[in-house]
Amino acid sequence: VILIKIGGGMSLNLPGIVEDIAGLHEPAIIVHGANAVRDELADRLGMEIQTVTSVSGTTSVLSDEPLVELMMMAYAGLANKRLVALLQQRGVNAVGLSGLDGRVITARRNPGIRVRQAGKRILLRDHSGRAEAVNVGLLDLLVDNGYTPVLTMPLVDEDGHAVNSENDDVVAALHRHKPAQQIVFLVEAPGLLTDPDDPATAIPHLNREKILEQEQRVSGRMARKLRSIRRALEASPTRITIADGRTAHPLTDALEGRGTVIQ
Amino acid sequence: VILIKIGGGMSLNLPGIVEDIAGLHEPAIIVHGANAVRDELADRLGMEIQTVTSVSGTTSVLSDEPLVELMMMAYAGLANKRLVALLQQRGVNAVGLSGLDGRVITARRNPGIRVRQAGKRILLRDHSGRAEAVNVGLLDLLVDNGYTPVLTMPLVDEDGHAVNSENDDVVAALHRHKPAQQIVFLVEAPGLLTDPDDPATAIPHLNREKILEQEQRVSGRMARKLRSIRRALEASPTRITIADGRTAHPLTDALEGRGTVIQ
Repeated sequence: VILIKIGGGMSLNLPGIVEDIAGLHEPAIIVHGANAVRDELADRLGMEIQTVTSVSGTTSVLSDEPLVELMMMAYAGLANKRLVALLQQRGVNAVGLSGLDGRVITARRNPGIRVRQAGKRILLRDHSGRAEAVNVGLLDLLVDNGYTPVLTMPLVDEDGHAVNSENDDVVAALHRHKPAQQIVFLVEAPGLLTDPDDPATAIPHLNREKILEQEQRVSGRMARKLRSIRRALEASPTRITIADGRTAHPLTDALEGRGTVIQ
Repeated sequence: VILIKIGGGMSLNLPGIVEDIAGLHEPAIIVHGANAVRDELADRLGMEIQTVTSVSGTTSVLSDEPLVELMMMAYAGLANKRLVALLQQRGVNAVGLSGLDGRVITARRNPGIRVRQAGKRILLRDHSGRAEAVNVGLLDLLVDNGYTPVLTMPLVDEDGHAVNSENDDVVAALHRHKPAQQIVFLVEAPGLLTDPDDPATAIPHLNREKILEQEQRVSGRMARKLRSIRRALEASPTRITIADGRTAHPLTDALEGRGTVIQ
């Protein structure tokens, strides 16, 4: 199986990606983000996405109940069903699932975010977690019968509650439980850049040993992506490509080695 | 299999319904509406749901693209994932699906609505259709492996596009293709009322022959529900109960015969 992570940026060429998926000769499992759809919907709703900064200095989204419901609408609702419809139009029998559906991706709830409020350290609990268990049985059932799973947020925790998480960690968890022949990350850049502001600095090849080094050099979303990739590779070696999702044929390009190839 | 249609009204007792489903000894397939969630979201978005009146006098929602996207967010997104989470919390391994997913419910696109505009008759085409084909293979795959399908809008047309339809017609189509041992409709009334304004007028029993008579007596949503029920019964006889979804144990009450029993 080929594992394809489609980023949530607004400039990704979804019709091109879908056309490439329709042309694959092997089964695919798709994981997608929906950041742009989420932010646009939050904007239309006049809703502000709260972020918190922990005492250790990392800033993250506060996954309160309104945010989890926004994820249900933007990720599991609009973005997922739009993508499933595009795939169906190209003859790919896609089945869109959030982590809740059939408990396909279970998360371990985060213990809380340590923040400073009015001079005091407090533990802020929210509805977030990290992808851990995968219902491989359900994925096999679908894939073996010709369906293409299209996975997204929210995930489910051990008690059956919806939790927000990182889609890149979902990819890593999937690969740990059901090793993929290769993994492609389609992003809004020509690959992993040494200078995030200069698209000409895409790294063509990266070996496993260099990932940690790069991880410490970059920041934000790309650092988290590299951490997920490192975790995936620790579990089982595979070929991973970080490629441009904005070209005419993003997946074909990635499979032909354009982008950053990690192996 | 028992087929359960959960209405989209805001006063339905979802936790009670979910508790009853968790106690069932036979597999269930659930179809749910989300009118209240949809209207609330439209309101928050400042979006007006357009209705059109055909030359024959029937008023219906105009399923333009913004409406179909609203359905994706409200039905397939928020309402579906909230219900799936409630079921998961009770140990029911629910899998939420729109008609698009695995082409589980295919609709035949409506040819258009004949309307009068500026004195002229025109044919208004929108993204609506009627449930027709059912992917019984996918439903069997899920049910036989212990999953509970939770179905909702939008449906998919022959070309893979999302279309809006009536959930009651989905129930009828499901029963035509995969006959149910019984069907329960959970609504915001104690059953089928002879006087829609008087809850004391619920009809305890109705035979097949009397449905058409009642259908002509009532109007709006209940008339459409009775038409769907008539169609379901034409395909295969079964026990159908229209029951109050607002009691402490709506499904248990329905299975014990409270509400309007049609057989």
